[in-house]
Amino acid sequence: MNKRIRDYGIKIGEFPTGKLNKITDVEGVTVGHSTVDTENNKTGVTVLIPTKENIFVKNLVAASYIINGFGKTAGLVQIDELGTLESIIGFTNTLNLGKVHDGIVDYTIGRCRDENVEITSFNPVVAECNDSFLNNIVDRVVEKENVLSAIANATEDFEEGDVGAGKGMSCHELKGGIGSASRVIELDGESYTTGVMVLSNYGLMEDLTLDGKKVGRELKKIIDAESREEEGSIIIVVATDLPVTSRQLKRLCKRAVVGLGRVGSNINNGSGDIVIGFSTGNIIDKNDDENFRQIKSIRDDKLNLFFKGVAEATEEAILNSMVGANKVVGYKNHVRHSLKDYIDKIK
Amino acid sequence: MNKRIRDYGIKIGEFPTGKLNKITDVEGVTVGHSTVDTENNKTGVTVLIPTKENIFVKNLVAASYIINGFGKTAGLVQIDELGTLESIIGFTNTLNLGKVHDGIVDYTIGRCRDENVEITSFNPVVAECNDSFLNNIVDRVVEKENVLSAIANATEDFEEGDVGAGKGMSCHELKGGIGSASRVIELDGESYTTGVMVLSNYGLMEDLTLDGKKVGRELKKIIDAESREEEGSIIIVVATDLPVTSRQLKRLCKRAVVGLGRVGSNINNGSGDIVIGFSTGNIIDKNDDENFRQIKSIRDDKLNLFFKGVAEATEEAILNSMVGANKVVGYKNHVRHSLKDYIDKIK
Amino acid sequence: MNKRIRDYGIKIGEFPTGKLNKITDVEGVTVGHSTVDTENNKTGVTVLIPTKENIFVKNLVAASYIINGFGKTAGLVQIDELGTLESIIGFTNTLNLGKVHDGIVDYTIGRCRDENVEITSFNPVVAECNDSFLNNIVDRVVEKENVLSAIANATEDFEEGDVGAGKGMSCHELKGGIGSASRVIELDGESYTTGVMVLSNYGLMEDLTLDGKKVGRELKKIIDAESREEEGSIIIVVATDLPVTSRQLKRLCKRAVVGLGRVGSNINNGSGDIVIGFSTGNIIDKNDDENFRQIKSIRDDKLNLFFKGVAEATEEAILNSMVGANKVVGYKNHVRHSLKDYIDKIK
Amino acid sequence: MNKRIRDYGIKIGEFPTGKLNKITDVEGVTVGHSTVDTENNKTGVTVLIPTKENIFVKNLVAASYIINGFGKTAGLVQIDELGTLESIIGFTNTLNLGKVHDGIVDYTIGRCRDENVEITSFNPVVAECNDSFLNNIVDRVVEKENVLSAIANATEDFEEGDVGAGKGMSCHELKGGIGSASRVIELDGESYTTGVMVLSNYGLMEDLTLDGKKVGRELKKIIDAESREEEGSIIIVVATDLPVTSRQLKRLCKRAVVGLGRVGSNINNGSGDIVIGFSTGNIIDKNDDENFRQIKSIRDDKLNLFFKGVAEATEEAILNSMVGANKVVGYKNHVRHSLKDYIDKIK
Repeated sequence: MNKRIRDYGIKIGEFPTGKLNKITDVEGVTVGHSTVDTENNKTGVTVLIPTKENIFVKNLVAASYIINGFGKTAGLVQIDELGTLESIIGFTNTLNLGKVHDGIVDYTIGRCRDENVEITSFNPVVAECNDSFLNNIVDRVVEKENVLSAIANATEDFEEGDVGAGKGMSCHELKGGIGSASRVIELDGESYTTGVMVLSNYGLMEDLTLDGKKVGRELKKIIDAESREEEGSIIIVVATDLPVTSRQLKRLCKRAVVGLGRVGSNINNGSGDIVIGFSTGNIIDKNDDENFRQIKSIRDDKLNLFFKGVAEATEEAILNSMVGANKVVGYKNHVRHSLKDYIDKIK
Repeated sequence: MNKRIRDYGIKIGEFPTGKLNKITDVEGVTVGHSTVDTENNKTGVTVLIPTKENIFVKNLVAASYIINGFGKTAGLVQIDELGTLESIIGFTNTLNLGKVHDGIVDYTIGRCRDENVEITSFNPVVAECNDSFLNNIVDRVVEKENVLSAIANATEDFEEGDVGAGKGMSCHELKGGIGSASRVIELDGESYTTGVMVLSNYGLMEDLTLDGKKVGRELKKIIDAESREEEGSIIIVVATDLPVTSRQLKRLCKRAVVGLGRVGSNINNGSGDIVIGFSTGNIIDKNDDENFRQIKSIRDDKLNLFFKGVAEATEEAILNSMVGANKVVGYKNHVRHSLKDYIDKIK
Repeated sequence: MNKRIRDYGIKIGEFPTGKLNKITDVEGVTVGHSTVDTENNKTGVTVLIPTKENIFVKNLVAASYIINGFGKTAGLVQIDELGTLESIIGFTNTLNLGKVHDGIVDYTIGRCRDENVEITSFNPVVAECNDSFLNNIVDRVVEKENVLSAIANATEDFEEGDVGAGKGMSCHELKGGIGSASRVIELDGESYTTGVMVLSNYGLMEDLTLDGKKVGRELKKIIDAESREEEGSIIIVVATDLPVTSRQLKRLCKRAVVGLGRVGSNINNGSGDIVIGFSTGNIIDKNDDENFRQIKSIRDDKLNLFFKGVAEATEEAILNSMVGANKVVGYKNHVRHSLKDYIDKIK
Repeated sequence: MNKRIRDYGIKIGEFPTGKLNKITDVEGVTVGHSTVDTENNKTGVTVLIPTKENIFVKNLVAASYIINGFGKTAGLVQIDELGTLESIIGFTNTLNLGKVHDGIVDYTIGRCRDENVEITSFNPVVAECNDSFLNNIVDRVVEKENVLSAIANATEDFEEGDVGAGKGMSCHELKGGIGSASRVIELDGESYTTGVMVLSNYGLMEDLTLDGKKVGRELKKIIDAESREEEGSIIIVVATDLPVTSRQLKRLCKRAVVGLGRVGSNINNGSGDIVIGFSTGNIIDKNDDENFRQIKSIRDDKLNLFFKGVAEATEEAILNSMVGANKVVGYKNHVRHSLKDYIDKIK
């Protein structure tokens, strides 16, 4: 694996990180990739599996927040209404959303069949960014097999950068893709872990900011990046083991924009910037037949530390998505350089 | 074709209808079906084509409104952000959403290729209801070919009831499916047409109301309908040639709930009740390279007539979806009777 | 007190009512009025007190829902963010909102001082409708004393119709004002009470519908009502002792529109139709210093009965606001007849 | 007047500023203050007058965006529904909102009477922050006269810092209050001006960031600021002469959060962070009796420059609110130091 932003001496924020400094520090979360890497196609699928149990049965409290809605993510309507997640989360390129959607339906029906769980309705969650700069996107080369392979490969210490759905993504006109970070925050002696994973694909080089330092203009002088009208996006997943309601989780999700802005985004028009959050702190078990549930939830006035944690982890996850990626030459010989090859000159 | 609700002497509201009393009375709109009808599978695809031109290039002003978000409709995030529609609208069952999504991507890429239009990003709109009472939904028998066939069959005087996506749908525990109605409203000598199309799949028999008359309890005495925990939904499309902004169109969409409530819905928990609206009154042409556009829009205080028109057309479209449908015996010999076979006894 | 809609043989819906068939059937809720009744001024203040305890300290779970936002209600932003209510609810006419706001601040500071509770921030909730047809609204005759008097008069068996804030309101071009109803719903042997109170001030006579019967056109033939461009509104308060989260409460609030539509509203442009809900099923006590709370909440798939209950109670509360009101002759000799004087001719 | 942040050599962003580098660079906008400055009371009123004409008649396109809804701002419901502003904007402390609301009603009725304009309904917009650290807020010393005086004093080259509503506000545990900035952005040879005004009252010292440099920790070592549980807020007004729809204006408003985050906010729980935007690029004239209007609107894909401009101007306006303020000793001898007295040590 490539080095991470902390390995370059850049430490974002103040809270301690989890063991891996990844979203998988939240107990039960795993991430897997399936990458397509041919001359014309740089793309793939990433899946985030929020819990070891069958999430279709053991739903998690969930929320979403639309920073900018120029995006096609599927599944958010129901998350907003019910405040629960019943699906693993898939990531892919814009034009393959339907196929990955179908792959997740397939996988979930299969798992439910194996476990003797009836499934007639299901809300798959699939997020996308547009990798058409490096990938001949109209080929739509991602297949159901990529979904199943990504699920099979899911692990805690997953790769970042140009892998899976991140293979063809660009960030600040450099190579972007998958990145992650986590924070461990204490509240009266108890520790809670909040992790962020991003699929980064947004922004202009001139706006790139490293821990407050505006390095973008400098970088532009030394890298001859191909510019293009932005059709970017960033998908941000916030996971936490903090017990919250869906209303509170939406508040947590909203704070991701602070970290995004600090890396230099101005939330451009063409960027579908979408946050999806879930908490493992309350399980909504479909098999539980009580009429009423007790939802454990933090006091709202204790949320500030966690708000800051989300902002920090988002900023760091984006930077990890950049230094974690290798230079990629893709479709029509389009090139995205890696921040890791230039960071020592500008930090 | 089956008779329509007016043929039974039930006239909803006061405004005159368009020529066909269907959504296709809005100039340029066509609707097509592809039906799957086997022993275990009663399902299909319906497509609504909003304009004769390539909508990917000539976008329409659009809006959506979530009455109840227990649904999976794809494409609404971007409609809300940009206020435009760049896709034909597909309808199918819940678990086939991904396949129909992919079919619409396929079709649109093909059309753009034929017309020499570059397409690297695209926001398909696909709505769904759950037909698992009459259809073995996990078979997911709908294929891309059904999408293309529905598109090829699109016409103005389209069928209602148990066709296309409506094949397996239930409404008030009777047979539901595709229904439509329209209203022509004059404003200072100019006529504007507003049409509604529904895919109806919600509700309890006991709540059914015919033009104010609560017939549901009576019907329950004479029909032995199989009940089931509701996993219904209704998709409502509002089309108009009235020049509006997307904000105004969302207001129009919101009035559909009035018609829905009048047929007897209490907007049940499991019902994904979703409204999608578009106006042909302003074309947002991607090829137009002006920095600024003039959007023609009605004064908000002139909208009341059109609000009432949407409520009326929605109520009538739902009733048309019911009397337009034939009795269907489907998966596991589940039966849905048709309102047309009982209406003379209870109206 | 005037007769209520049930006294005329019109029974809305199926669920049993609470003891008074008013919102005050929810334990702890009281309502008080202060009426201004002079030649030119027909207006006043109504207050709804959600709990006998100091609500600034013992907050209730709350939600709001905007049916149509042509209204000025204060306090909704914070209700939406935090999901709690910390204020009694005031009702008055549009141009007196600031004064009633100030009166509620005054009262709350006073009560907190008496109870030795520190108060430096506070979110008053004040709703309004426009009574300018019967009231010379620019006089702004409501004073702080009216607020305090309404609070002092708050009781369970409160008056309906042309009292308090309802004094000058019109509904379907007849006299409107304050109305209420309640429903008692059983869930596995436990009873839960849901009540609705409205301040009704919307609609056209021609659209009035009595339990499904469209009586408006008939009424127009026998009553010579003065018409005017609608600047109406309806405020709907939903109270329940059902344990819910704020997300679920918003879902309950949303169902009020069903009842509103059934009385004949098409949600006109100029009508600020706003729903405010609270539940006494969970107390959010500011003095409780635990970091985490347990929120008791019903399963979402058990909500249907309560959804229907809200629709029923809203429809009945509006009708009670009309038959509960007397004919009023107000500013400029404008007249609003009472439905009670005509109902026997048209029902 | 105090120096501004640029006078200390700190230049935020890249776009040129307007003539005054204030929101009043947008043609027609003026701002006025009325300050209360006694031993126990440090508070006041600020008004922003969006146009020289009677805004009740000549409405402007408007939008709002709630960054965090722990706030009491009045008037947003109608702005969201209709997309228009018909009121001047008032600013004061939390517990005086009702009085300032009433003052604005008074002023507007008066102006309409003078101009022979009928006014029976009106949507005043009043924003608030909580100045209870420096001001004995329960005294509620602001009166209607302060509103009228602030209106009378409105001017283009208005004061910043501890004036008007800003008198008692704190920002990052230093003195905050009123601040402003503007940007002039060219689009194909035409110049458009976007201005921001803030009432700043949020944040922790440790998070303060000066143009990317995290100076907060350093400052904490040299200033012994009294800390308190945050009950802050920031109100951000975005004005522009760019022709936009209300949907687009909401998008512009949303970008203010980027600037806010860059100064160090993590959008804390108790902070009512609210953005109100208006455009002078389209006038919605109530006297215009056409059924349809032409709304001039920029293409969405040309908005990026303006998004960046809003982020820049918000960041600079907040810093101006801090260096523009003098040290204030207030209620109970609470002290807020001014950034201007320390900036040379830490920048």
